[in-house]
Amino acid sequence: MNTYTFDEIQEGMEERFPVRITEEMLDTFRDLTGDENPLHKDESYASEKGYQSKVAFGMLSASFLSTLAGVYLPGKYSLIQSVEVKFSKPVFPGEELIFSGKVVEKNDTFRFIKVKAEAKSSSGEKKLKATMQIGVTA
Amino acid sequence: MNTYTFDEIQEGMEERFPVRITEEMLDTFRDLTGDENPLHKDESYASEKGYQSKVAFGMLSASFLSTLAGVYLPGKYSLIQSVEVKFSKPVFPGEELIFSGKVVEKNDTFRFIKVKAEAKSSSGEKKLKATMQIGVTA
Repeated sequence: MNTYTFDEIQEGMEERFPVRITEEMLDTFRDLTGDENPLHKDESYASEKGYQSKVAFGMLSASFLSTLAGVYLPGKYSLIQSVEVKFSKPVFPGEELIFSGKVVEKNDTFRFIKVKAEAKSSSGEKKLKATMQIGVTA
Repeated sequence: MNTYTFDEIQEGMEERFPVRITEEMLDTFRDLTGDENPLHKDESYASEKGYQSKVAFGMLSASFLSTLAGVYLPGKYSLIQSVEVKFSKPVFPGEELIFSGKVVEKNDTFRFIKVKAEAKSSSGEKKLKATMQIGVTA
């Protein structure tokens, strides 16, 4: 886990990590949230809607933005204040995503940073993009 | 699960449901995402930072926006396109949140709706607010 303090953070700093989205993650997220939507559990319904397979919950992929902030950028001293996330392409179980984030702004008065983030597939397809405002508590 | 089609949806429609955020949910979310940040698992660290107890992951609370869209508004024919969420107050394990959402816009050309959402504690404290753009696939 990174332990960047506010003073140590510079605009342009970047972090990245891979995540494979699995069937089990979909099951866990469904049990956690109660989101029983058939797009995320019924192959034939997903196919009917034009998808190659069940689609991963967008908010499951977005959950790894928590990891990006809380483990990587800034890491330990993170407190997420807001998140804007746009889901560009569907994510399918079995796909590996590369999450990356870059510090694009430092606010010295309120001691927060803005991090632009994205998740791409291994073939380079952008699956989601996000902007996070993250307080830095040390 | 609601099954509102695009034509059935009207501006002003509202849905709400309760969720109790539990310790077990924090554990599940940690295992799912790998976000090992101590604010969400170490009482003494959270106390040192000025909190009454471990703080729930913001993105855990935000995960129930998936349920709001996929089960309630519009329900079955939901496809979340984007989410903006602001975390106003910390959520602690054991707290019950009331999630609510209201349709504030219908886009007939692109067949999406905008839903303004929030989660309040049982004492009426606003914990998060969000705006979601949701495609309606039927």
